Amino acid sequence: MAIITLTTDFGTVDGYVGAMRGVLLSIDPQARLVDLSHEIPAQDVRRAAFVLYAATPFFPSDTVHLAVIDPGVGTERRAIAVETPDGCFVGPDNGLFTYVIAEAEEWRAVTLVNSRYHSSQVSETFHGRDLFAPAAAHLSAGVDLLALGEPIDDLVRLPLPRMDVRQGYIEGQILYTDHFGNLVTSIGRLEWRGDGLALTSALGRRIPPIRFPASQARVEVSSREVRGVRKTYGDVSKGCLVALIGSSGFLEIGKRQGSAMEELDARVGAPVTLHFPEA
Amino acid sequence: MAIITLTTDFGTVDGYVGAMRGVLLSIDPQARLVDLSHEIPAQDVRRAAFVLYAATPFFPSDTVHLAVIDPGVGTERRAIAVETPDGCFVGPDNGLFTYVIAEAEEWRAVTLVNSRYHSSQVSETFHGRDLFAPAAAHLSAGVDLLALGEPIDDLVRLPLPRMDVRQGYIEGQILYTDHFGNLVTSIGRLEWRGDGLALTSALGRRIPPIRFPASQARVEVSSREVRGVRKTYGDVSKGCLVALIGSSGFLEIGKRQGSAMEELDARVGAPVTLHFPEA
Amino acid sequence: MAIITLTTDFGTVDGYVGAMRGVLLSIDPQARLVDLSHEIPAQDVRRAAFVLYAATPFFPSDTVHLAVIDPGVGTERRAIAVETPDGCFVGPDNGLFTYVIAEAEEWRAVTLVNSRYHSSQVSETFHGRDLFAPAAAHLSAGVDLLALGEPIDDLVRLPLPRMDVRQGYIEGQILYTDHFGNLVTSIGRLEWRGDGLALTSALGRRIPPIRFPASQARVEVSSREVRGVRKTYGDVSKGCLVALIGSSGFLEIGKRQGSAMEELDARVGAPVTLHFPEA
Repeated sequence: MAIITLTTDFGTVDGYVGAMRGVLLSIDPQARLVDLSHEIPAQDVRRAAFVLYAATPFFPSDTVHLAVIDPGVGTERRAIAVETPDGCFVGPDNGLFTYVIAEAEEWRAVTLVNSRYHSSQVSETFHGRDLFAPAAAHLSAGVDLLALGEPIDDLVRLPLPRMDVRQGYIEGQILYTDHFGNLVTSIGRLEWRGDGLALTSALGRRIPPIRFPASQARVEVSSREVRGVRKTYGDVSKGCLVALIGSSGFLEIGKRQGSAMEELDARVGAPVTLHFPEA
Repeated sequence: MAIITLTTDFGTVDGYVGAMRGVLLSIDPQARLVDLSHEIPAQDVRRAAFVLYAATPFFPSDTVHLAVIDPGVGTERRAIAVETPDGCFVGPDNGLFTYVIAEAEEWRAVTLVNSRYHSSQVSETFHGRDLFAPAAAHLSAGVDLLALGEPIDDLVRLPLPRMDVRQGYIEGQILYTDHFGNLVTSIGRLEWRGDGLALTSALGRRIPPIRFPASQARVEVSSREVRGVRKTYGDVSKGCLVALIGSSGFLEIGKRQGSAMEELDARVGAPVTLHFPEA
Repeated sequence: MAIITLTTDFGTVDGYVGAMRGVLLSIDPQARLVDLSHEIPAQDVRRAAFVLYAATPFFPSDTVHLAVIDPGVGTERRAIAVETPDGCFVGPDNGLFTYVIAEAEEWRAVTLVNSRYHSSQVSETFHGRDLFAPAAAHLSAGVDLLALGEPIDDLVRLPLPRMDVRQGYIEGQILYTDHFGNLVTSIGRLEWRGDGLALTSALGRRIPPIRFPASQARVEVSSREVRGVRKTYGDVSKGCLVALIGSSGFLEIGKRQGSAMEELDARVGAPVTLHFPEA
């Protein structure tokens, strides 16, 4: 009983996701359908790429992840499926799988050109239903990746978020803002080692070995400074900003029982600097 | 393992849908529960009717579709189940199934008066949980439609949306507005035949044979004119209005990477005219 | 095939709920995942407690209910699992299960201190994924409650909502406001007995036997008076306030085809009085 996850910008008001679910279950009646999010802001490929990156590692490796954020539907943009050691990914070739692939030790991909695995009628405006869902369900039902189309290796990729390691500081940016108003930055992964922090690899980048005491770090963001990196929200008072290690291992700025995004009027892409004492 | 889909105006904030899911799985533990939408605007039967129409054809024909948009709960309005070649439908008799039935070649219906298939206690305010969910789960578990109550054939129906075919033009109206701000009109179904369009039957209506070149069509809506019917959003520049064939086969007005609904300040019911050159 | 329900304040925009679902299905691939709500307002433990109370009685008694509204994540607050005759409950020890426990004839609970049933890495900020989801999935897969940690009996509990029975009136308060703007009060349970109402026990409280004719009752709320308790919305005209028995058995104030919450500018906690003629 394989799992198929769904990530879209369709919202949950219309029947679009429902139609996709019908197609998936018509082709693979055994599939378990699991939603990641259907509330990706319209056409925000970068946010969806991070949602996939944050959630998909927690699924079994035979899971199929279907993602449809597709501003280029009906144009020349390719439809693809990508197989990684952590699962298969199906969607438009527009950068959606950038972060997932950056972490993968190896992968292979195809364009979904074999019409045998499309719906019998393919609309020009809803490839999620007519092209991507059938591909995902056939993969889930056991069809081999290479049967779906032609191998490719030149996937479209988003630029990786900035993270520059300097002497005593790291320059990064806000990578993602969440429902609670937490600011996920591109600085990481960070791991606790007792009371200290160690910087380790993320998004496939090589990182110099850096360790420093968390209490002596400070974070600059939106002309504000947050002192220390804490273990949890409870380590500061209500209403205070707090820097901590988020659930995906990146430096995160939050506000206890509030929204850091509102307090700092912060946007994705804005610069963040982590200062730390050199060893 | 039969599928039960759920469509309501309950939203997802409260536990109401959860309680229905508990009832469904208590009666039919094998059922697959699939959401179409719980974000139908409160008591908007017409929107729900279109959501059902757009999504349910993509499910296996033994699916049970449970729909609870029920402004008349506890009044004399009947509770019904309808069997069509494309699936069974359960809900209040207020027009929810109008479009589905208009497409069905045949159907039969009952009022849900057999209390054996109700919950042991039926509240006056939540028939979704106490009356419709039990009926849907019993159908899914194999109970025959006729066991649920008394046959009827005078279902309440909404007026079908306007579509008048004239010499050289078709008068219709906006039937539905979606999450992206696309305007789905009542004009259709339209199908591509090369670079031309053919009008075919929809909602059970007889249609004269009409074919015309897509590039010479023009659409009037909200005192604006959109020239040509295109294959996809990518055929116009960013921010431009575009007329195309939507995923249910109806003429649709969109805006590339924007909201046609906002740009045109358009509402459901507003008139739309499709002009085309006569053959 | 056991059921696991999910209730969180995570929203559905990010991948957080998705990551939890991945953990649940990785540990118990047979589990049926069912959402109660992910739209609990951030850190609103009291609302979540009511949602659990309203929805969980409708699930089979071997269901595991996972609830993560957790403002104290990473602090000293305990992580717990509670077994009742109506199902198991897993989440932080902050009062989430107050109403459920108040109704339970008996229960037993443990703190989730056995690290064998945690994820291999436990973050400081996402116990829903790393601690509560694993516990829920192990319970669902058949692990005994007592294996998860140490028995406790001093659970944190919210104060029960006010309900004071006087001579000829009952003083209560608004307990919950729903998606439709209905005001659920703490006055109940009430049951119909013909045209009269009987007050019966709720939330484990002993109640004197009270019966009165519904038509002679009146409800005071927000300096307004609503006369009579009705069976359903249809018993008043459009736009009128109506007092009725809600789907959980509590007195409820609604507005036909509108929002009582808006009309009365009412908030959770505000006083409500039900006057009735003494027998």
